[in-house]
Amino acid sequence: MKKLINAVDDVVKEQLEGMLVAHPDMLKVNFEPKYVYRADAPVANKVAIVSGGGSGHEPMHGGFVGMGMLDGACPGEVFTSPTPDQMYECARAVDGGAGVLFLVKNYTGDVLNFETAVELAHADGIKAQSILIDDDVAVKDSLYTAGRRGVGTTVLCEKVVGAAAEAGYDLDQCADLARKVNMYGRSMGMAITSCTVPAAGKPTFDLPDDEMEIGIGIHGEPGQKRMPMATADEITTMMVNEILDDAAYSRTVREWDREEGTWVEKDLTDAPYVEGDEFIVFVNSMGGTPVSELYAVYRKVAEICEKRGAKIVRNLIGPYITSLEMQGMSITFLKADEEILKFWDAPVNTPGLRWGA
Amino acid sequence: MKKLINAVDDVVKEQLEGMLVAHPDMLKVNFEPKYVYRADAPVANKVAIVSGGGSGHEPMHGGFVGMGMLDGACPGEVFTSPTPDQMYECARAVDGGAGVLFLVKNYTGDVLNFETAVELAHADGIKAQSILIDDDVAVKDSLYTAGRRGVGTTVLCEKVVGAAAEAGYDLDQCADLARKVNMYGRSMGMAITSCTVPAAGKPTFDLPDDEMEIGIGIHGEPGQKRMPMATADEITTMMVNEILDDAAYSRTVREWDREEGTWVEKDLTDAPYVEGDEFIVFVNSMGGTPVSELYAVYRKVAEICEKRGAKIVRNLIGPYITSLEMQGMSITFLKADEEILKFWDAPVNTPGLRWGA
Repeated sequence: MKKLINAVDDVVKEQLEGMLVAHPDMLKVNFEPKYVYRADAPVANKVAIVSGGGSGHEPMHGGFVGMGMLDGACPGEVFTSPTPDQMYECARAVDGGAGVLFLVKNYTGDVLNFETAVELAHADGIKAQSILIDDDVAVKDSLYTAGRRGVGTTVLCEKVVGAAAEAGYDLDQCADLARKVNMYGRSMGMAITSCTVPAAGKPTFDLPDDEMEIGIGIHGEPGQKRMPMATADEITTMMVNEILDDAAYSRTVREWDREEGTWVEKDLTDAPYVEGDEFIVFVNSMGGTPVSELYAVYRKVAEICEKRGAKIVRNLIGPYITSLEMQGMSITFLKADEEILKFWDAPVNTPGLRWGA
Repeated sequence: MKKLINAVDDVVKEQLEGMLVAHPDMLKVNFEPKYVYRADAPVANKVAIVSGGGSGHEPMHGGFVGMGMLDGACPGEVFTSPTPDQMYECARAVDGGAGVLFLVKNYTGDVLNFETAVELAHADGIKAQSILIDDDVAVKDSLYTAGRRGVGTTVLCEKVVGAAAEAGYDLDQCADLARKVNMYGRSMGMAITSCTVPAAGKPTFDLPDDEMEIGIGIHGEPGQKRMPMATADEITTMMVNEILDDAAYSRTVREWDREEGTWVEKDLTDAPYVEGDEFIVFVNSMGGTPVSELYAVYRKVAEICEKRGAKIVRNLIGPYITSLEMQGMSITFLKADEEILKFWDAPVNTPGLRWGA
């Protein structure tokens, strides 16, 4: 295994140490348990936005801590959920009295642990709510999920809801906005190489030199299908059409009822996209694919959108939700209304995403 | 060869098409000959900063076109110098009457072609000057250079001098500042995997599973030495010490004398670093190395600096001057004075680097 690391057990700790010395103006780090939080936390009377998940997807989530985005991020070991105590301690550190919103990618371990964290926070008098992100259209259920996986929309949701919290939205408004962003977001990914988890020491999967995996997850878990390697245009066309054609997606999610102190089930239905919709389009590198190739992909995305009457009004192109050094990319469409665009354009000042500040 | 591309011959063109549709607010693209230039070019009475070089190092240079950085960038084929006509046409498109400063990485092809471009511009009545970047401490001469190679300092120079031009510096002041930034900058790189140039279709070099190449160039050209794979801390220590211990570097550069209309030779001597110096430190991914590993490296850089009395006052961490999908990293130190820091902190609005705007 060739990586710029020291001991395998220190990978996450040393990465956090580097972030702390690099960005003391933006963030602080707690090491026992591990979480990254805003340098100026807690911010009084502002809803605190917290996310987390397995490490290995950098800059997500720790790299998105700072003004206008996340108040806290809880990193697990590589590709492994963080624990409820990390989430709860992080929530305590960032709660400024207006409550904490957890943004949770839909993987079984993360969902269970964040549910426990909500209960711990609630028992401690902290208003807490969690919203699931499940935007991956590739597979209905996967190796690590019941229902769709949470992928690229997570980054966009953290930006939009982070800005809303900054602008004074209360906890229910932030939760409503996060729910809407998730309903409006759809993603799909593909890989041309595997990645190697440090603790495993060998590639997560084997992919022959002439094949690619379509619909792969961000942990290297299998996707829709393996097929012969194709051109950038063919791959992009397949993925964009699948995203735009995705029919309404109904599912039941559990959300915490603060009044009753219990979980309630909510039925949600995604509205499918219609011609004339406006979108933020996000073309993401899985880590090892250079940005030059992403631009070739984006060019084809724009061409297809033009033909199909989908209007791209903003874009994000680069490595933002990765799988270590995996080569491949994902495409995310987020239907954008006035509210979403306003918060997308708002200033942000984090190690991983920065503008207007 | 597994890449997200279509035809090998279209790689650069399609990447530029993607950049154009993605960032029409920041840049325009000319396709015959190829150059990327500011959306609002020419900016009247502002010195125009132009760079260029082989493609494959993205986001450098095209991704640094926009307010506060480059006015124009000339992309060659992958790892191949652009031609004088590209540079000259680009200079014509961006000159707002205050002249054009070419920032040129020290590779034989680039140097010769930019020299011709200066002469073409001068013959056309455009005030033009070129400054060489030769900051790589690893090797004195290399496969593609007489003298040191131009690497990471190029990115920092484009940012600093771009901001100075924005602030109203005239051509001579911009050239003086660029010369100083180059004299104050030193870099070194390493690789753990090769990359594959699309036109070649196979890896540029072979590197056994248990070896790394120290002092490598950004085109995969050989470095100082091959050695057994080591830990991130060992590699970082070796490179930082070599950078900080680099003795004064004297060399002769050719610069255009506008009054006389001829080339003149200038003797330059780098001032070596002394204890207490302040630095901008740049830890760069060669493309395939994830940002998480860069933070582990940065942590060690900071530790060594602390011990050696080198004060890091700013940092840049990420993939900014890459070698396609190569895994590895480079470290750049730029001694920072008040003038350099002021322009480093100024707003910038480009696809590849953005803050304060």
